[in-house]
Amino acid sequence: MLTRIDHVGIACHDLTEKIKFYQSVFGLIVVSQEVNTDHGVHEAMLHVADAPAGSSYVQLLEPLDPDTPVGRFLARRGEGVHHIGYGVTDITTALATIGARGVRLLDERPRHGSMGASIAFLHPKDVGGVLTELVQAP
Amino acid sequence: MLTRIDHVGIACHDLTEKIKFYQSVFGLIVVSQEVNTDHGVHEAMLHVADAPAGSSYVQLLEPLDPDTPVGRFLARRGEGVHHIGYGVTDITTALATIGARGVRLLDERPRHGSMGASIAFLHPKDVGGVLTELVQAP
Repeated sequence: MLTRIDHVGIACHDLTEKIKFYQSVFGLIVVSQEVNTDHGVHEAMLHVADAPAGSSYVQLLEPLDPDTPVGRFLARRGEGVHHIGYGVTDITTALATIGARGVRLLDERPRHGSMGASIAFLHPKDVGGVLTELVQAP
Repeated sequence: MLTRIDHVGIACHDLTEKIKFYQSVFGLIVVSQEVNTDHGVHEAMLHVADAPAGSSYVQLLEPLDPDTPVGRFLARRGEGVHHIGYGVTDITTALATIGARGVRLLDERPRHGSMGASIAFLHPKDVGGVLTELVQAP
């Protein structure tokens, strides 16, 4: 069902500064930068690797406002890993299967994610404390 | 420098139960299970995907004792993502480069990790709150 680790979502206070850090220390390259008002974030995707099942990324997330999911995460826990995104080939089927196995879905239906992907989140309390995202690449 | 997201390290209270969860909900398969007394963990590697640069995994970590790094993490933050492991081709060179760029190394020299890999950790305070591991596959 899971085809790859699509991305690691990392919450930060200052997107520009953190992009510079990942570029200069690890040599990663920004392939996309978007403001997503639905999610309340300014985000950047930094390319890590390509693979037959799709590429993988570090996703840096700066909240647009303190009263957003990522803003509240930062206030509560500080900077760090916010969620993990796994690739799937068919997100609608994956959601139905995972939901039937007893995991609560934060998104009953896929919505728009980074770089044209269809995404959906699973409830972290049902996935051992890990906010888990499914990603179907466009 | 980074060749892939090698693994997501997830801290849990009950390794057996969490393995069952990842198997039954996401269809992942356990490819290795080890007790690492140096790190104070009982751990399992669950295969997610293969790629030219190496495979990627979910790593589940149960502490051997509350007074271990993962045990203290669980007491402080509860279950969830503990660290991110990135693949590198030459860990000694990568450590020297990253150290020279101002990131403190928790391991000055590589040590033994899961499945025969050479690994080293970087200081999370210097990587935006993310405990970051470098992994050179055997």
